[in-house]
Amino acid sequence: MKVRVEQKILDKNEQCAEANRSFFTKKGVGFVNMISSPGSGKTTILARTVKDLMGELHIAVIEGDLETDRDARRILEVGGQAVQIETKGSCHLSARQVTESVHKLQLEGLELVVVENVGNLVCPSDFDLGEDSRVVVLSTPEGDDKCAKYAKAFVKADVLVINKIDIGAMLEFDYEKVASEALKLNKGLKIFKVSAKTGEGMDVWYDWLRSRYRKNQG
Amino acid sequence: MKVRVEQKILDKNEQCAEANRSFFTKKGVGFVNMISSPGSGKTTILARTVKDLMGELHIAVIEGDLETDRDARRILEVGGQAVQIETKGSCHLSARQVTESVHKLQLEGLELVVVENVGNLVCPSDFDLGEDSRVVVLSTPEGDDKCAKYAKAFVKADVLVINKIDIGAMLEFDYEKVASEALKLNKGLKIFKVSAKTGEGMDVWYDWLRSRYRKNQG
Repeated sequence: MKVRVEQKILDKNEQCAEANRSFFTKKGVGFVNMISSPGSGKTTILARTVKDLMGELHIAVIEGDLETDRDARRILEVGGQAVQIETKGSCHLSARQVTESVHKLQLEGLELVVVENVGNLVCPSDFDLGEDSRVVVLSTPEGDDKCAKYAKAFVKADVLVINKIDIGAMLEFDYEKVASEALKLNKGLKIFKVSAKTGEGMDVWYDWLRSRYRKNQG
Repeated sequence: MKVRVEQKILDKNEQCAEANRSFFTKKGVGFVNMISSPGSGKTTILARTVKDLMGELHIAVIEGDLETDRDARRILEVGGQAVQIETKGSCHLSARQVTESVHKLQLEGLELVVVENVGNLVCPSDFDLGEDSRVVVLSTPEGDDKCAKYAKAFVKADVLVINKIDIGAMLEFDYEKVASEALKLNKGLKIFKVSAKTGEGMDVWYDWLRSRYRKNQG
């Protein structure tokens, strides 16, 4: 019974996800779904990215949180376009919530919409939002043992951003262990090491975004 | 439909939780449910606690993880008693999983069982395991804005352990902000600031455990 209902919920989500995918493809706008634990630095990465790529890559952010509109305000503060979804306790964003939020964005001239999912390394992995790329963020203080333990999040991702490398050495974070475990789960995974706080390594992440989403490559 | 099924799942969990509560009460063994994001340091706190209180407070640990038995092995390595539950993708532990695991423990002489829940600051909050105390762990790198964003985890807790205080100052973690937000949600919450790595602050946490769970207070 439980399994059948879960399947129904997932099927319904998949229909909405496909609708989102068609919508974004038709508009020629990229769509990234960003997943991580709470506090890994998703919002800091996005605020810095939006600011640094301003005038070069047109990004809007859909922020998902259980409660508060704090994250959307951080994107607005750096001059970006953002809308907030408050899930009121739900542990993941659904494709339908994205559909409803997209219409609050000014899509004209936009090249990329990034959805920052609810801080949760487990549940959001099961819910396709219709994204063309999935980015998982892992921060060094979370520890270098997380890929095998939370495998699903890494198996379905296109990119792994390892954040907070400014304190990685101090925490004896083993990048090779993480890369090895992550690539064992998902051999096509791209891995970027960054500090959204200091800016270190962000250029490689920006290059990936530019090459994938910038319309005017001139 | 979805709501009704969720209610049924929660009701069934609540029945098992009550059975667990009766069982532990009858045995005179304490039962703590520990909840946090991935990587906040739950296992490090527990491994240090088990080691430091060895011979003084008899603790066993039930480790919950999506995959791998790494955490149980870390408790065994310091000489503690531990069993691992692998949820195989499920985002929280259920009361029934605890019931099944408890019977793998040697309960004779035990004073406290701590369940380390799956690393997830959202879903485990909804599932009573039958615990007499709920402990939520927040680590400084996760940021000082998490209480209002993940309110449910803090509303239902008895204790908040703020871990990784050894790097809190460097990260400009605002303890007063966290305490103020947390106490606004839950005015009876006890707050302990610790570093499970360096040992700083652990004594106050140990005192709480001793006063609450030690049978022979002599």
